[in-house]
Amino acid sequence: MLSFSLQRLSTAFLFVFVTLFAHNTGATTISKTMPVKNVIVAIAMEAEAAPFIQHLQLKLVADFFPSNTPFQAYQGPHGDCTVTVITNGKDTVHETGVDNVGTVPAALATFLALQKLPETDILINAGTCGGFRRKGAEVGNVFVVTGVAHHDRRIPIPDFVPYGIGKLDTSRHGDFTTAEVLALELEYKLGVCTTGNSLDKTEEDDKHMLANDAAVKDMEAAAIAWSCKLFDTPFLGLKVVTDIVDGEHPTQDEFLANLLAASQSLQVALPRVLDHICHVGVVKDQAMDEL
Amino acid sequence: MLSFSLQRLSTAFLFVFVTLFAHNTGATTISKTMPVKNVIVAIAMEAEAAPFIQHLQLKLVADFFPSNTPFQAYQGPHGDCTVTVITNGKDTVHETGVDNVGTVPAALATFLALQKLPETDILINAGTCGGFRRKGAEVGNVFVVTGVAHHDRRIPIPDFVPYGIGKLDTSRHGDFTTAEVLALELEYKLGVCTTGNSLDKTEEDDKHMLANDAAVKDMEAAAIAWSCKLFDTPFLGLKVVTDIVDGEHPTQDEFLANLLAASQSLQVALPRVLDHICHVGVVKDQAMDEL
Repeated sequence: MLSFSLQRLSTAFLFVFVTLFAHNTGATTISKTMPVKNVIVAIAMEAEAAPFIQHLQLKLVADFFPSNTPFQAYQGPHGDCTVTVITNGKDTVHETGVDNVGTVPAALATFLALQKLPETDILINAGTCGGFRRKGAEVGNVFVVTGVAHHDRRIPIPDFVPYGIGKLDTSRHGDFTTAEVLALELEYKLGVCTTGNSLDKTEEDDKHMLANDAAVKDMEAAAIAWSCKLFDTPFLGLKVVTDIVDGEHPTQDEFLANLLAASQSLQVALPRVLDHICHVGVVKDQAMDEL
Repeated sequence: MLSFSLQRLSTAFLFVFVTLFAHNTGATTISKTMPVKNVIVAIAMEAEAAPFIQHLQLKLVADFFPSNTPFQAYQGPHGDCTVTVITNGKDTVHETGVDNVGTVPAALATFLALQKLPETDILINAGTCGGFRRKGAEVGNVFVVTGVAHHDRRIPIPDFVPYGIGKLDTSRHGDFTTAEVLALELEYKLGVCTTGNSLDKTEEDDKHMLANDAAVKDMEAAAIAWSCKLFDTPFLGLKVVTDIVDGEHPTQDEFLANLLAASQSLQVALPRVLDHICHVGVVKDQAMDEL
C-alpha cells in the first residue's frame, strides 16, 4: 500500500501529499483523515489519570455513571474535541479501597461510557504496562497497541480456543489506521498488548504471551477493546512501560519503583496523542475508486 | 445460633417452629422468611439454559438487553414469581460463535439485567463446574455456593491482594441465610466456588484454589456475585459437578464426557430450587429484639 511505503516520510508530509495528489494520481490507495470530535480516555488507576485530568482542567461529571458503580468520569473541551476521562474508581465491593484494576471493571466502565456517549469517535486506553525486552521494550517506552489478546483464558476445547485468546486487531478499524500513523508521527513503538488479571505471571502465562507475540502486558486492554467492539468504536491503546516482563526482577518490585516515572512519561505522551487526534483526526486508507 | 442448632430438623419443621414460637420464646435469634417475587437466573451457556427455559415455558424478550450485546433474556411467570433467565449469548466479537463464557460477559450481562430489573429479589447463578474430591465432590453432585473467590487474579502488592482474590460470603446476605437452608432442605452440598477464566488449571491455580478453600471451580460466579453486590442483590450459586479438578483426568475431557449428564442434573435441581424460593421465600435470621 502507498501509505506503507510512505511511512518513513513524516506524517505531516503525508497529509500535504494527500492534499496535493489525492484526486490526481493513479495510485490504488490513498490516505485521508476524518475529524474527531468526541474522545473517551479510559485509565484504570486514579493516580495515572489525575495529572492528565488536571492538565486538561477536566471537571468531574457526578451523574455520568450509575450511582451504584465505583466508576468516575471527568469531562471538558480540548481544542475542537470533547474529552471524557473515565477511571474504574476504588473498590468498595471487597472494601479494600484500592483501584479496580483488571478486566471486569474495565469492560463494564467502558461499556457504560460508550452507552452514555454513543457519538464517541475513538476510545483511548492509556496506562502503564510490562514490556518485553525481546520485542525491544525498555522502561519508560511508550507503545501504541496494534492488537490485543488474553493470556489467561485457556479453554482447551478446539472451538473455544480462539474465543479464549480473544485476539483483536487494533491497528486498524475498518479503513482507519490510526495506530501506525500515530506511532510514526510521535516516534512511539508499536506492538501487541497481552492482557491478564494478574500483575505477575506464571510459566504457563509466558507461553501464551509469546504465542500472542506480545510487546507489552497489561490487565485491561483486551477487555476494553471487547467492549469497544460491541459499539464498533475504534480502540487505541497507549501503554507506558513500568517493568520488563522477561527481565530479572519480579514485576511487583519494578512496577512500584518505576510507577512514578512511567506515569510522568504517560502524562507527556497522552496530551501529545490527544492533540494529534483532535488536530489531525483519524487517518483513513481508502481505495481511489471509492473517492 | 438457634437456626444452626436446628439444621438437622427439616426446614418445613423450622418454619412451623417459627410460626409457633417466634413471639413467645426468649431465644436471641429466630428464623423467618421474606417473600420472593422476582428472580433472575444467570446461566452462561445456552445448552445449559435451554431445557430449563423450555420446562418453564419462558418467552424470549427481544429488547431486554441493548441490541449491541450478545446476551439473551427469557421471561415468564412461575407460581407467584416472575422468572427471568439470562444467558451470555454467542461470541460475535471474535467471530467464533461459541458461548461467551468467563468473567467479563457474565459480569456485564448480570449488571445490565439488574439495571433493567431493579426489583429483583434474588439472582441465581446456575451452571456446571469442576468439583474437588478433597471437599467431597462427585460428578453429578449439586452444590449450593457459600462463598466465591478468584484464583487467577494474583496482584502481589499487599493492599491489592484481597481485591485480587475478591472473596465474597454468599452464604448470607445481610440477615438472609438462603444457601444453608436450601442445601439442608434439598439435600445438596455446600461449599466455596473459586472462579477463573480458564477451563484448565495450572499448579499456581491449584495453590490459590486451595487457599480459597474451594469445593467447586467455575468461570463466572465471582464476577456475577460482584455485579450483584453493586446492586446489593442477594446472590445464590447453584453448581453441578461435571469433572473432578483434583482427579486423574484433564478437565476438558471429563467436562465434555459429563456435560450432558450434569446438565440433566441441573435441570432437576434448578426447578426444585426455584420452587422452594418462590414458595418459601428467602430465610431471614433476625434478633428477637428486632421483631
